[in-house]
Amino acid sequence: MPYTHTLFDIDTESHVATVTLNKPERMNAIDQGDAKDILDICARIQDDDDIWIAIWTGAGRGFCSGADVTGGPRPTLEGADLNRLLDEGSWISRQGNALYGIDKPMIAAVNGVAAGAGFSLALACDVRIGSEAARFVTVFQERNLPPEGGMSWLLPRIVGMSRALDLSMTSRRVDAEEALRIGLLDRVVPGERLLDEARAYAAQIAAVPPSAVRVSKRAIRRGFETPFVEATRYESQLGSLTQRARADSKEARDSFLEKRKPRYTGR
Amino acid sequence: MPYTHTLFDIDTESHVATVTLNKPERMNAIDQGDAKDILDICARIQDDDDIWIAIWTGAGRGFCSGADVTGGPRPTLEGADLNRLLDEGSWISRQGNALYGIDKPMIAAVNGVAAGAGFSLALACDVRIGSEAARFVTVFQERNLPPEGGMSWLLPRIVGMSRALDLSMTSRRVDAEEALRIGLLDRVVPGERLLDEARAYAAQIAAVPPSAVRVSKRAIRRGFETPFVEATRYESQLGSLTQRARADSKEARDSFLEKRKPRYTGR
Amino acid sequence: MPYTHTLFDIDTESHVATVTLNKPERMNAIDQGDAKDILDICARIQDDDDIWIAIWTGAGRGFCSGADVTGGPRPTLEGADLNRLLDEGSWISRQGNALYGIDKPMIAAVNGVAAGAGFSLALACDVRIGSEAARFVTVFQERNLPPEGGMSWLLPRIVGMSRALDLSMTSRRVDAEEALRIGLLDRVVPGERLLDEARAYAAQIAAVPPSAVRVSKRAIRRGFETPFVEATRYESQLGSLTQRARADSKEARDSFLEKRKPRYTGR
Repeated sequence: MPYTHTLFDIDTESHVATVTLNKPERMNAIDQGDAKDILDICARIQDDDDIWIAIWTGAGRGFCSGADVTGGPRPTLEGADLNRLLDEGSWISRQGNALYGIDKPMIAAVNGVAAGAGFSLALACDVRIGSEAARFVTVFQERNLPPEGGMSWLLPRIVGMSRALDLSMTSRRVDAEEALRIGLLDRVVPGERLLDEARAYAAQIAAVPPSAVRVSKRAIRRGFETPFVEATRYESQLGSLTQRARADSKEARDSFLEKRKPRYTGR
Repeated sequence: MPYTHTLFDIDTESHVATVTLNKPERMNAIDQGDAKDILDICARIQDDDDIWIAIWTGAGRGFCSGADVTGGPRPTLEGADLNRLLDEGSWISRQGNALYGIDKPMIAAVNGVAAGAGFSLALACDVRIGSEAARFVTVFQERNLPPEGGMSWLLPRIVGMSRALDLSMTSRRVDAEEALRIGLLDRVVPGERLLDEARAYAAQIAAVPPSAVRVSKRAIRRGFETPFVEATRYESQLGSLTQRARADSKEARDSFLEKRKPRYTGR
Repeated sequence: MPYTHTLFDIDTESHVATVTLNKPERMNAIDQGDAKDILDICARIQDDDDIWIAIWTGAGRGFCSGADVTGGPRPTLEGADLNRLLDEGSWISRQGNALYGIDKPMIAAVNGVAAGAGFSLALACDVRIGSEAARFVTVFQERNLPPEGGMSWLLPRIVGMSRALDLSMTSRRVDAEEALRIGLLDRVVPGERLLDEARAYAAQIAAVPPSAVRVSKRAIRRGFETPFVEATRYESQLGSLTQRARADSKEARDSFLEKRKPRYTGR
């Protein structure tokens, strides 16, 4: 199923899916239609057993410039359906939850500006590799909005509380060098090598049993939401079940005892 | 209303309030009377629509040396009102909650030693700019107390868990250089430029709609207290309401479409 | 009571206990019997009023290489007691909880590789001092497990969310230099000075009233598990009770007023 403004490619050998936001003339801004496609892609990444890892990147000069705002009428409180407004959340919020719901590793290959919902998308990835052209700006505030798409939760856990407040209160632009220094980018590489580096990193992850990678991601993210004693219980349950229920556990053990390279299936 | 040991100045043009702890001969130590004044100032900052941003600093060589302990009788368990003791909290705790309850940006201009409750006051600000004379020491432990005034919650979120434990367990002094390195200070500037730099930073914040700055601060702080899915719901609700209910949302939109500089009112 | 593979030494003058994992031919790997001894040691550290601080280190070239896996039968889901499996947790989980339950300061003197449950043990200490030979590797994933022993909770709070995911998803090795840079080690010293440095740091802590150190540790760790307003309440309660109930509070106050060096008893 081809998407209008998004390329979705699965390499069945490496088990790596690459998602390329592809509306370069608008710096890959996302409108409501694109948002639906992204939700669909998130579900496929999570559900397809042949996908172990996903890389997100942008076509052209930008990574993703955020919501593609149109000149439509300004929303007002009068006549608004308050229950729906409070319950349902914006599409940016739904996108944040869909990205967060994926327990497979995701790598952002940040090739240019990541703004607003595009910045949130990069934060929802587990690791961010950038080119020298990578730029981050929260932008939400300039539209009189708080950080959305999970940014209020993710940003302080990645760059610390003071820096998250600083970036949000000023909506200032962060270039690749500062992004690396404050931990917003994990690595900076030349633009022409960006995708290769992301794939090399994906290959490093793929050398570990995929089910272990998934439960590790689950445990670490959940660790932020529970007291210590609950975290150890959750780890332990995930571990016991994974070891018993997963074929790759047998392969990890057998290959270790037989002193050979393991061949994981992701099952 | 003038305060005994605190200067409170509001610049109606820049919308910046400056709070100067003014008991230089005691390094701006806080006693029970000063603490009441600070609670009153916190309420005014939060309630006055003409105040968008607050700067906290100290007169003379110190920022704030903490609680001004008198030689009064040592508190004992015998005869203590245990319910009150467990429910009400110390004035340092009330001060911490009052500072934390302000959703407007606060900048600490740390001109000298920040100790005990003075250290907590600096941590409750969103950004800390220091002179070379800035010094931090938790001090609480030397009086057989845990970190108070919110320090146990704020310090590890600003410098990480290991460093928060290190500083608390040794009660050692941190100078400006180390403070910058570990993220306790966001910037170090020459002492004679400290207030100018704090005001320049305030002007950067004031270029963003004040209501967006306030909901951003709310969302980021709340993000530490909720699971991810609740954080996206909260962001989204704050965003929807702010966009619909605030006059500055219209100004942000109109100025963008009319390609002119916005004029925000904070309403 | 001597332990099979663990040396446990208490210096009654400095009040420092030193725990040395002592199975050097297996890089101090921990089996079920050793795990029981460690639980016993944890209880003694917490309960013995003469112990104020504990140092953990390893004999020989390694710190602790984790679980000593035997070639026994692979666990399967068939026939497993699911309730026990979900409720009880692994011994690594029990060890994590026992270490976490100690409110006295603990210093890891990391003399070599810390892997799996050995890595978790180092993370459960409050401060980590390493020699140049220190190495960290999560290892769990290579056995198709998530990070256990509290690692999912501790690691992201020490090195940040992105790095915790990176280390867990790749199970890559971190050497002393990188460990220092990302905050996994607080300091790196020459191997022959490692224990001396750990003891010098313990002496720094011992200059502060031990009860203040304990409630500080409690407050900071609890701060990660509660909203801000609960944290200030907890701090305040700990402070009020400690000040009133502890003999060292009187000594802290008296020595301050009498301008002499305090002599704390830990009571």
